[in-house]
Amino acid sequence: VGARVAGASAAAKKGALAFIMRSVGTDTDRIGHTGMMRYEEGIAKIPAVALSNPDADLLENMLRREQPVTFSLNTSASGPTGDTVTIANVIGEVTGAETPDELITLGAHIDSWDVGTGAIDDGIGIGIVLAAGHYIATMEQRPARTIRVILFAAEEIGLVGVRDYVAQHKADMSQHMLGAEWDFGNGRIYEVEPGVGPQALASVRDFANYLAPMGVGLASTNTAKGQSDMSLLGEAGQPAFNFAPDGLDYFDYHHTENDTLDKVDQDALKLNTTIYTLFAWYAANSGVDYRQ
Amino acid sequence: VGARVAGASAAAKKGALAFIMRSVGTDTDRIGHTGMMRYEEGIAKIPAVALSNPDADLLENMLRREQPVTFSLNTSASGPTGDTVTIANVIGEVTGAETPDELITLGAHIDSWDVGTGAIDDGIGIGIVLAAGHYIATMEQRPARTIRVILFAAEEIGLVGVRDYVAQHKADMSQHMLGAEWDFGNGRIYEVEPGVGPQALASVRDFANYLAPMGVGLASTNTAKGQSDMSLLGEAGQPAFNFAPDGLDYFDYHHTENDTLDKVDQDALKLNTTIYTLFAWYAANSGVDYRQ
Repeated sequence: VGARVAGASAAAKKGALAFIMRSVGTDTDRIGHTGMMRYEEGIAKIPAVALSNPDADLLENMLRREQPVTFSLNTSASGPTGDTVTIANVIGEVTGAETPDELITLGAHIDSWDVGTGAIDDGIGIGIVLAAGHYIATMEQRPARTIRVILFAAEEIGLVGVRDYVAQHKADMSQHMLGAEWDFGNGRIYEVEPGVGPQALASVRDFANYLAPMGVGLASTNTAKGQSDMSLLGEAGQPAFNFAPDGLDYFDYHHTENDTLDKVDQDALKLNTTIYTLFAWYAANSGVDYRQ
Repeated sequence: VGARVAGASAAAKKGALAFIMRSVGTDTDRIGHTGMMRYEEGIAKIPAVALSNPDADLLENMLRREQPVTFSLNTSASGPTGDTVTIANVIGEVTGAETPDELITLGAHIDSWDVGTGAIDDGIGIGIVLAAGHYIATMEQRPARTIRVILFAAEEIGLVGVRDYVAQHKADMSQHMLGAEWDFGNGRIYEVEPGVGPQALASVRDFANYLAPMGVGLASTNTAKGQSDMSLLGEAGQPAFNFAPDGLDYFDYHHTENDTLDKVDQDALKLNTTIYTLFAWYAANSGVDYRQ
């Protein structure tokens, strides 16, 4: 993905007419992986495309013959280029019964890349955080702290929604006690990494005991900032948990036409939703200052 | 595939504006299955398209809500429509040492559908019959009968090449002693069915004994005409063997963009090539009149 973002500029510096990369992912469907890329300023903006793995194999085989290869590239881009559209983060809360100003945040992004339907990136995330909020809202006992579910807008084009959220919440960032995002596909969570103050680690170990029977380990590091959108909240000072799911097939579906509803692993989705619900409930009632 | 061929005309009779079918195949790639279809004479020629399985799922879910669904169809066809091109069957022989006028034929088709690269349909077949001819040609002992490898042209648009072959070989069709085609993908052969005279069945059972250790059974029926192109030689009187391979994934690759070289099962290809080579060698040296 680093090559996808920076490859065209690197190729242009060497005088290339276009940049062609092998698709990210291990699949052998004839579908290219897409996603955001950037042009460096002052460098020629050359076309940049991805070849599916079977097509990259074909091209490599042609080049291996050490005979001249003619590559004809027809590419087009569509969509609004100069226009701007107004979009919005969607935020909901289960208001805390005891310390409603203290926030536990659950994040996911509501936009998707254009080629697929966004079932995995990030429909799953939206489903997990909405379900976690729903399950807690339907419980008889209310959480002590407020649980805030944030559906971030315009993540795909550069974390735009969360930048606005952070700008608007500078004054109350210290009320953001702990957060977690879901934006990495389909797999079962196998590990949780905290990013909290040293005194809070005892509470993290206690929480991890609830997850151990589900096959979730506790990372030995304590450097999590939050994933995706929520990484910017982490930079702004919000403690975070990063839940790491099995991502072996992530790039087979991510930003391809194959990101469709049938790819969702429903068993993993149930497990991951359970973990996020537990996380929100535990953190909202722990009384722990995760900054300390 | 029957629905693919006849569906548009059936829909047009009921007043449909277009015909949309769920892709043939079990895959969940977002790639539609394509292939030949026919318009009945005197019926409106409406557009006909295939939806990939994930897209068909999406559409079914939308229809299940029992609310109005708007379906916008943009489709185009390209390629020569009024022009004709000249193409050729490609034929090679290992000339028989004793009865060179007696022919054992191996067939496959050299054209492919346009969306994929034709690795499976019918690159595999071309590879199998060429390799069988090659192995026999490199043997010290020549076969008694001639082994003729026929790479048929223009199978996809309606068995055009073999029609010409049959028309040109009416006079010597009785010299076509036995034939077999390969045009069904990737799987291991699990059964051979003969289509021969009753006296030749003893020889068939003897040949089947060579295949049994490779997991190939002998069909209880004796009605094979030859597959694909070669079915027309069967109708013209040529005895045939039909080798049946596992076809569970055939329609996942057949006539889709996913018909690429990486899909080839190399172990199956070796086994199937061995069987076709054995077949040609056995039939060329059996002395059996497969018509009797």
